This record gives sequence, C-alpha cells and structure tokens, in this order.
Amino acid sequence: MKISTSSLILTGIIVILAASLISVLIFMKNQPIADRGIQPLVEIAPMEPNSEQWGINFPNQWSTFQMTATNNNRTVFGGSVPFSKLEDDPRLVVLFAGMAFSKEYNEDRGHMHSLQDVREIDRVDETTPGTCYSCKSANNPSLWDKMGPTDFYKTKFYELGEQIEQPIGCANCHEAGTMKLIVTNPALEEALKEQGKDWRTFTRQEMRTVVCANCHVEYYFAGEGKYLTFPWDKGTNIDQIIAYYNEIGFKDWTYPETETPMLKAQHPEYELYTQNSTHYNAGVACADCHMPYTRDGAAKFSTHNVQSPLLNAQAACGQCHTDVAFATGRVAIIQQQVRETMDAAQDALIDAIDAMKIAAASPNVNAELLNEARQLHRDAQMYWDFIAAENSMGFHNPSEALRALSKAIDLARQAQLKAIQAVNGSTTLQGQ
Amino acid sequence: MKISTSSLILTGIIVILAASLISVLIFMKNQPIADRGIQPLVEIAPMEPNSEQWGINFPNQWSTFQMTATNNNRTVFGGSVPFSKLEDDPRLVVLFAGMAFSKEYNEDRGHMHSLQDVREIDRVDETTPGTCYSCKSANNPSLWDKMGPTDFYKTKFYELGEQIEQPIGCANCHEAGTMKLIVTNPALEEALKEQGKDWRTFTRQEMRTVVCANCHVEYYFAGEGKYLTFPWDKGTNIDQIIAYYNEIGFKDWTYPETETPMLKAQHPEYELYTQNSTHYNAGVACADCHMPYTRDGAAKFSTHNVQSPLLNAQAACGQCHTDVAFATGRVAIIQQQVRETMDAAQDALIDAIDAMKIAAASPNVNAELLNEARQLHRDAQMYWDFIAAENSMGFHNPSEALRALSKAIDLARQAQLKAIQAVNGSTTLQGQ
Repeated sequence: MKISTSSLILTGIIVILAASLISVLIFMKNQPIADRGIQPLVEIAPMEPNSEQWGINFPNQWSTFQMTATNNNRTVFGGSVPFSKLEDDPRLVVLFAGMAFSKEYNEDRGHMHSLQDVREIDRVDETTPGTCYSCKSANNPSLWDKMGPTDFYKTKFYELGEQIEQPIGCANCHEAGTMKLIVTNPALEEALKEQGKDWRTFTRQEMRTVVCANCHVEYYFAGEGKYLTFPWDKGTNIDQIIAYYNEIGFKDWTYPETETPMLKAQHPEYELYTQNSTHYNAGVACADCHMPYTRDGAAKFSTHNVQSPLLNAQAACGQCHTDVAFATGRVAIIQQQVRETMDAAQDALIDAIDAMKIAAASPNVNAELLNEARQLHRDAQMYWDFIAAENSMGFHNPSEALRALSKAIDLARQAQLKAIQAVNGSTTLQGQ
Repeated sequence: MKISTSSLILTGIIVILAASLISVLIFMKNQPIADRGIQPLVEIAPMEPNSEQWGINFPNQWSTFQMTATNNNRTVFGGSVPFSKLEDDPRLVVLFAGMAFSKEYNEDRGHMHSLQDVREIDRVDETTPGTCYSCKSANNPSLWDKMGPTDFYKTKFYELGEQIEQPIGCANCHEAGTMKLIVTNPALEEALKEQGKDWRTFTRQEMRTVVCANCHVEYYFAGEGKYLTFPWDKGTNIDQIIAYYNEIGFKDWTYPETETPMLKAQHPEYELYTQNSTHYNAGVACADCHMPYTRDGAAKFSTHNVQSPLLNAQAACGQCHTDVAFATGRVAIIQQQVRETMDAAQDALIDAIDAMKIAAASPNVNAELLNEARQLHRDAQMYWDFIAAENSMGFHNPSEALRALSKAIDLARQAQLKAIQAVNGSTTLQGQ
C-alpha cells in the first residue's frame, strides 16, 4: 500500500493536535484554581493558617499582603500609623471615662500587624476572653473548626493565645484549593442567616465586600460565654443597631458619676458603607478601592496591600474616575465637613455629661428626668461613635454619616436639657 | 487666440469657487450671532423686553421657554405647582410667626408665571418697594438703564408696575444681537465686584451658572431706599452670610413675644450650589441640568423649559450618567436624609421658641442669658432656612446642606438651654 507524503503530513498534524487537546484537558481537570489557570506549586491544606504556604502558589498576592507590615502611612484623618487618638483629641478621654478606651485608643495598623498589636494592647488582661482573637489571626478558621466557636470564645485570651501564631492571613477570607472568597467568622455566618441571607448564593463581587464584614463591623460579646454577636437582627443601619441594643438592654460600660449604661461602637465600616452609600449602590466593592487591581509584569491581580485608597489613589480611584485629583479633592472636602460636625457632636456630648454629673450629684434630683437624660446620652454617644469609630471620616457614606452626627448633636443637647430640668424640677419643664 | 475647452472649464471652476468664498465671507461679516451662524430674521433692540420679538430669531428657545407656563409638575419635595408650604408643614406658621411668610408661603411656578405670581401675592401692599420686581420681569434691564437702580428700588411696587408688562424673559440673561449671556441685575454686578470678580472675564460655561445668580440668591433690601443687596462681602457660604448679617445688625423681622431680630432666607440656590458641591466642582453649570441640550429635528439647543431635572431626568442626568435610574435614586435617598434632618431642626427650633416665650414672659428673667438665646435662635433659624428655602431639598450640595442643618439643630437646642437658664438663674448654669 502506497501512502502519499501529504497524507502523512496531514495525519501527523491531526495526531499532534489531538495530543495537545488531551494534554490541555488533563491539565484543566487537575486544575482546582478555577479562574486563573495556574498550576498550583504546592497543595494547600484546608484552613491552612500559614499564609507563607499559600504564598508559594500566589506570590503576587502574598508579596503585596506582606507590604501591610511596612507600609505604615498616615492620611489626614487615619492611615496605618498607630498614633494615639486620645492625644490627638483629649475630649475622647472624657467621652470614654470609666472604660479602657479612655486609657488607650490607638489608630490600627495593617493586617500583618494584627496579632502583634492585639497582644500589646494594655487593655488586655487575664479576664479578657478568647473572643478578642476573632479578628486577629489566620489560625481562627481551623480553631473554630476544631474547638467550635463557643469554646473558642470561652477560653481566656492568654490561654487561647498559645494556639495562635499567625496574624490575619489568606485563610481568613479564602477557601484553600479553589481560592474562593468565603465567610469564615461564625458571627457573620449567623448574622447573615438571621436576616435570611446565605452568602453561598452571593456573586463574587458581593463577596468582595462581604468578606470584609468578617471583621470590619459592629459587634458585641453576648452573655457569660462572651459569644461574638453582630447586632443586626433588626437591620444594619445605625438606627436599627441602637434599637437592637436598647431592646436587649446591652451595655459596654457604665459612665462614672452619671451611672449611664453606655455603648461603645467598634468599627462598623461594613454597615455604614452598605447603607445606601453612593459607591455601594453603584456596585463598588470594598476590594475595588482598598485592594485595586494592579500589575506586576504581565500579571494582573488585586493588590493585597490593603490600605487607605488615598495612599494609592491613582489605582484606587483612577479605575473609574478619570480625574483622580478631583476625586481625592472631594474626599478632602467631605471629610472636613464630617470632622467639623463630629467636633460639634463631641462638644454637645461633653456639655451633656457635665450637666448630668451635676444632676446625679444633686440630692433633690428628679430621678425620672435624669433617667431620660441617661437614655438620651447613651443613644447620642452611640450615634456619634458609630461615625467616629468607623474608619473613613464619613467618606464611606457622607450623607448617612452627617445624618447620624446631626442625630448625635440633637440627642446630646436634649440630654443636657433633661439633666438641667432634672435639677430644677418639673415646674421649669420648658420647651418640651 | 485659441482657448482650449479644458482651460475654459478650469477657469469656470475657479470663478465659481471665488464667488462662493466671497459670498460666505460677506455672510459671516453680517452675522452677529457668533457661534450659531444663523441669519437673524429681525433685529432685536438692546434690552428688548418682549421675548416674543427674540423668539422670531430663536423659535426653539422661545417655544420651550413658553412651556414654563403650562408645564406645572410636582416633584416629591418641590416642582412648579404653587402648593402651600404652610399647609404642607404647619410648623412653618410657628417658625415665621409675626411676618408675612406665616400667612402665605407658596411653592413658585415657572419663569413665565413670574409677573402674574408676584402680583397675586397677598403679602404685597402699598408700602412694598419696587425692589420686589427685580427678579420678576424682562422689563427690568431697560428700566434699570433708564431710571438707574436707585430710583427703580425707591419707586413703590404699584407705581413701578405700570411700566412693567413682561414676565422674566430673554433680556434678563442675554445681550441682544450677540445673544451672549450677561449679568443684568445691578446687585449681582455689585456683589461680584465687591469680591474682585468681573463676570466679563468669565467663560461661557461659568456664565451658564452665574446668570442664574441674577435671581436665585440670598439678598436683602438695604436702607431706606430698599437697595437690593447680596450679603456676599465676607463670602458666599452660609457661615459668611450669617456673619455679614450679624455684623451689620440686619433683621428681616422681629419674632413676636420673644423679641428676637430674625433673618429670612430667600432662595440661595447659587450660594449653596457653588460652595464646593460635587457637581459644581466637576464643572457642571446650572443650565446643564435645568436647561439640558435637546433636539428638534436637526437643531440642537439648550431647552429653555427651565424646571426640576427630575422632571426631565433622561436629558438632564443622562448626558453624564449612563444609569439614569441610579442617578435619580441617589437624589431620592439624599433628599430623604436631608428632609429627616430638616425635620429635626424644625422641632428643635420650635422647642427653642417655646422656651424663649416662657423666658421672655418671666418677671425675673436673666436679660443677658435671654439675649444670648435670641442670638442663638436667630442664627439657628437662618442655618435651617438657608436649606429649607433653597429649592433642592439639599441635593444641590448634600454634605453642605447636612452640615448647615446640624448647625441649626445645635444652635437651636442651645437657644432652648439658654432660655431655660435665663428663667432658672445663673446658679443652675450647667453644662456650659
């Protein structure tokens, strides 16, 4: 049988193509990282606490994440430098009198510092629950899995600390193997469920906001077991959160001299941002601004050097805003307006506290009116603190921040009024 | 001499081209309307009061301007329907007690109604100065030119009215012949000059905002001659305007029972908008949203049916915002936040007024403290009214509006406090 040269060549081409196709299919089958097509160099164990291991497969993400250790820059109102907020604004010492934040209240640093910084906080002592590690370590997912959250929270901070060696890392937000974004904090899982939401049905873009809510939220420690809980049952806006705390009668501490049951806000970035803010409603995720896409040679990836977008404005704002100087100029104007209104709220709160101290010390005080003053002060300070503790000087949601601060001012001045009326008696109950 | 056919043809072409060029040059020389290239059908006299005359040359602009007579639509918070603001919110009757606005305060209609509506206002009587016509008629530019502004203002409203027959029209904003945008109101010319600004040096885009300031501003009638004056000497933001009024000791009326010298805001759209608002800083002019470009066949022109952009959102917002529903959704959210904060300010003002009435009626009142309360009430109400009287429910400048309203709340509650202290005596001067 005679075979022509051209037939031979054609057959050869077909064989090569078929072999190539089979190779590609085999490669894809063995390829768990769905959307990148990168062959993993090492296999990552589920919930692997050591980010360095993940970093072998994802060198760009890991090298930028490590920058959060050294990239300590200050912005006008925040940044990643651990300056003392108390030295910056001594009014906070009065506002947080009787609780640990009046002794020490520092700006936080980047993710790589989370473990070191929580261990150096003077507020921590032998009574501190393990719950305080919830947002501080990549060891948590595997510990929650092993111990269950209840035991994790119950274990004292120092004891639990023996099993914790990693700062925040890959395992806090990613599923090993698929690298999918996941909710790892049981409190977030539970709070979403309470609202009928299952994060497993969320889009990837939604997850690029929701994973930040693993930590950047308002929370409290419920009951004796110090169970980490998000106060979201009524909803996530400031009015609903205050209503929740009032309904369950929770307090973070008692204000000295006035005996007011107070609330301390944590860092409700997620709640403020997702409350109808311009950027959130436009579909912008936390990661779009705080972890903007960047390049290293031909590789395009989301930088893991999480920081203020103002420190990286060209990449952060420039993806959507053609005029970056205009965009950052807007930030400056709005933050200044929020800062000014926050100042007024702080002054009003301090006036209220001063009047309440006098009322509480008065022998003939009207107890009912003083109680009303306490409720007003409690609510007012939480409206203020929700914006003051939140890390954006209102920019995450300017109009909502200003609305909340105006509520704080109104309620604080009413607390001051009630305290004065509590001393003067009901005959001078004017203007109410 | 023999001439070839081709030479004849070439020569013919050259002659035709030369003739065409000359014709075009002659046309351009006789063409005063610089940027449109339209041959005017009739010549418009300088400051021609009758817009119908201008309309012969500019039928599109005129026909859309006429729509302001019939296009009476309501938006959520405003629009062009003359609903009673007092019926809408009876608290205004208390806030404006003792002055005409507590008797009648209606939403304004479109430009074509300006003359009819000012003549039907019950507040007008034989003492009303001619100044009140300053923003109501296209007859004004020629009258100011003929009489001079001083005599215009001095002449009584009814007498001056005999020379006025046109509503607002072309001559209020345009120079006949060139159609250039111009400042026609002497008060605006003077206020700009006071700040070292000459509108003749402004760009066309700047003029598309500044001409609106011919009327849409805060103003007062200075001295016996009721000289129309803008309170801009210290600057155009609300803090600077209040400081100006306090320095000259101006009052619009005296609040009954409390004897407070009060201020009434007019319609400071220009001042609020140009105070670092997002849209203004982005280079957007009033006309971009309120008079968006529109088409009639092949003609593209700026519609003169001036109205709320919400009534024409596709044209108004859609020029820049690809997602118009998103943009109008933002307006709704922000206006709701402003409305809520405005409500709180009104409640605080009424509480202050109630407390001050009791104080003013008390025989042993501390006069000094009552005076401080008066100053606080005066300032507080102006901060509120600056946003309440301004026609955008804060949207022209959301963060500035909320900042101003929070000031109003703070000062109103402090007025209430001072009034209570004025009755109770200095022994209970707490929290100050």
